[in-house]
Amino acid sequence: MWDWLDTRAADREAAGLRRRLWTREADHALVDLAGNDYLGLSGHPRVRAAATAAVQTWGVGSTGSRLVTGTTAEHTGFERELAAFLGAEAALVFSSGYLANLGLVTALAGPEDLVVSDALNHASVIDACRLSGARRAVVEHCSPLAVDRALTAARETKPYRRAYVLTESVFSVDGDVAPLAELAEVCRRHGAALLIDEAHGVGVHGPGGRGGAYAAGLAGAPDVVLTVTLSKSFGSQGGVVLGPQPVIDHLIDTARGFIFDTALAPASVAGARAALELLRQEPALAERVHANALRLHEIATEAGLAATAPSGAVTSVVLGGAERTLAAARMCADYGVRVGCFRPPSVPDGLSRLRLTARADLTESDFARVCAVLHRIPRTDTGPDQCNERSGQRSVV
Amino acid sequence: MWDWLDTRAADREAAGLRRRLWTREADHALVDLAGNDYLGLSGHPRVRAAATAAVQTWGVGSTGSRLVTGTTAEHTGFERELAAFLGAEAALVFSSGYLANLGLVTALAGPEDLVVSDALNHASVIDACRLSGARRAVVEHCSPLAVDRALTAARETKPYRRAYVLTESVFSVDGDVAPLAELAEVCRRHGAALLIDEAHGVGVHGPGGRGGAYAAGLAGAPDVVLTVTLSKSFGSQGGVVLGPQPVIDHLIDTARGFIFDTALAPASVAGARAALELLRQEPALAERVHANALRLHEIATEAGLAATAPSGAVTSVVLGGAERTLAAARMCADYGVRVGCFRPPSVPDGLSRLRLTARADLTESDFARVCAVLHRIPRTDTGPDQCNERSGQRSVV
Repeated sequence: MWDWLDTRAADREAAGLRRRLWTREADHALVDLAGNDYLGLSGHPRVRAAATAAVQTWGVGSTGSRLVTGTTAEHTGFERELAAFLGAEAALVFSSGYLANLGLVTALAGPEDLVVSDALNHASVIDACRLSGARRAVVEHCSPLAVDRALTAARETKPYRRAYVLTESVFSVDGDVAPLAELAEVCRRHGAALLIDEAHGVGVHGPGGRGGAYAAGLAGAPDVVLTVTLSKSFGSQGGVVLGPQPVIDHLIDTARGFIFDTALAPASVAGARAALELLRQEPALAERVHANALRLHEIATEAGLAATAPSGAVTSVVLGGAERTLAAARMCADYGVRVGCFRPPSVPDGLSRLRLTARADLTESDFARVCAVLHRIPRTDTGPDQCNERSGQRSVV
Repeated sequence: MWDWLDTRAADREAAGLRRRLWTREADHALVDLAGNDYLGLSGHPRVRAAATAAVQTWGVGSTGSRLVTGTTAEHTGFERELAAFLGAEAALVFSSGYLANLGLVTALAGPEDLVVSDALNHASVIDACRLSGARRAVVEHCSPLAVDRALTAARETKPYRRAYVLTESVFSVDGDVAPLAELAEVCRRHGAALLIDEAHGVGVHGPGGRGGAYAAGLAGAPDVVLTVTLSKSFGSQGGVVLGPQPVIDHLIDTARGFIFDTALAPASVAGARAALELLRQEPALAERVHANALRLHEIATEAGLAATAPSGAVTSVVLGGAERTLAAARMCADYGVRVGCFRPPSVPDGLSRLRLTARADLTESDFARVCAVLHRIPRTDTGPDQCNERSGQRSVV
């Protein structure tokens, strides 16, 4: 029955692409540059206290779909506060960012519509486009011109009913920022809506961590819809869609990943809510992450490594081959620095990389250790240009 | 931009199909027959204590994908224990049951394969089939004969590489049980794998709550893979795939909703783990749910209502029209009984229903109140036969 899986596993093994789970212990002295807890709030005493209080008040689970029993006062309170923070009209919490993207795109787009998707969009955006059944155009990374051409070309081939342009605000692997104002301008000329995944933007980019759309002057724009995750800057779990009230109402009525899914646990909502409150009180947290990311980039570059310039929390060290990258990641771990290791299919063949994620709470001693370990990685042939020339190489949609 | 949403909303309003979120307060005296907290464990002191301890130990979020930083000792410990409980070789926790189904089916099936799906399967199974790109056959509800014919007919039309048969063990809306032993027999004759969604089976069905597959003698079967949710009997949040080790290893390497999603929060894992321990220590919990569901069915029938016979925790009272059903649900709430209200697209047109979910901890006073309120619902024209004759009416896959 499963012999074919053994063959596949052997093929991946030979290509250095096997993935193995390693179990994290609670106490460790590692410098963590791998997680997405950008603001270091997942373990903050007030975030923990809020989650604990929610467990006492509501129990551990939400007991059902948001529409049946799963909407607590915690959910609606957080939705109101996050919408106000980001300048959106309304918000809707899902159990994950993955399902938020699936729910949003499949509720808005169908076979008569067109979706135009950045070549480096996240897997959840790609799956959402596929699942919607809409016509799909995958365009060059971060190129408003390519989006413009795709919208024109698609209309000339066969008129579409409605069009949606999908992008991340800060891209997850390399941490680069999309040209959101220009994309919005192109969308408006074509009457298309712009759907922006702010997973890696909110909390680390824009004024006070309000994300890329806010920074680009798109807060509350009537033709823009945002997706935000609660598992990164907000130190918790879950996803949120934010946008005009009619869009949110439509999701409540029709989004399958909302209607047919158990609501996010009250403790996760409460934890994210407390993190939002901390970010509001201390907007400098966001700037600190970015400053620390620039510092990591500087350290990597000085070590002779090709690293992508960070716009948010992330800088990537492009090493090339999958096995070589894996060996470098293991060496980092041996020296007490945990880094992300991105290999195909997460990145294109030959562009495997270490992902270094800054946190707001990195110390001088952390930086010293990172510096020591990066100097032990053999220099690469990949130049800085090459590591930014990757558009369209990822097989998507 | 969004005028079309207003039109759609007006159409749904006219059809009685608008959904509105209502906010649950923490303190209430309602009898809850709407949630999926079958064993009443979401608020159990030991479950709450385990979740609270996990928040203290690990923080609120898991900080990353299972492959990057998200696998804690809590995750791997729970996977081992749940696999042992259900007699499976290995297990893998996802952040939701929805993503577990998407991840499983898309990792196993592709365009050269065939998926045969029960007409009343859950939205997540339907979306998983769509997203896989496999050839799809939707077959009559709970019919091994229909599965047999579909496998034969598909092969005769055009040979497929591999085939998967997808069913729930206990169906969510009506609580009926699939003929799993017969389905497994058909699968074996055709060399197909059987994928069983145990979301509503584990905890309430089979010996000690081990679910439908276990009851049908399929525990540890080499050609069977299970999906389990943690948000129902286990009172928490999340999903798990259980099956042969090569299947689990393949998911770790390739399942997109696993690789590209943040891991389930440690508190949710710990809560589910404590609930599993309670169920192991008190296997009678499962029988108590079923006995209470039979009692609810009896009360509904005596009130002259057409109710589906429960095999697990659920009995459905089929009322017909969407507006009428909504009015009945509101009347129940006014009298202190919260029930599920299922309307299209969750159920076929004309077969809207109240879903009554039993819990292990219902009291005599709860039953008395349910009895009083059900007698206030006008009798229906829908006979018991009609409410079980719904196969193929749901538009799926």
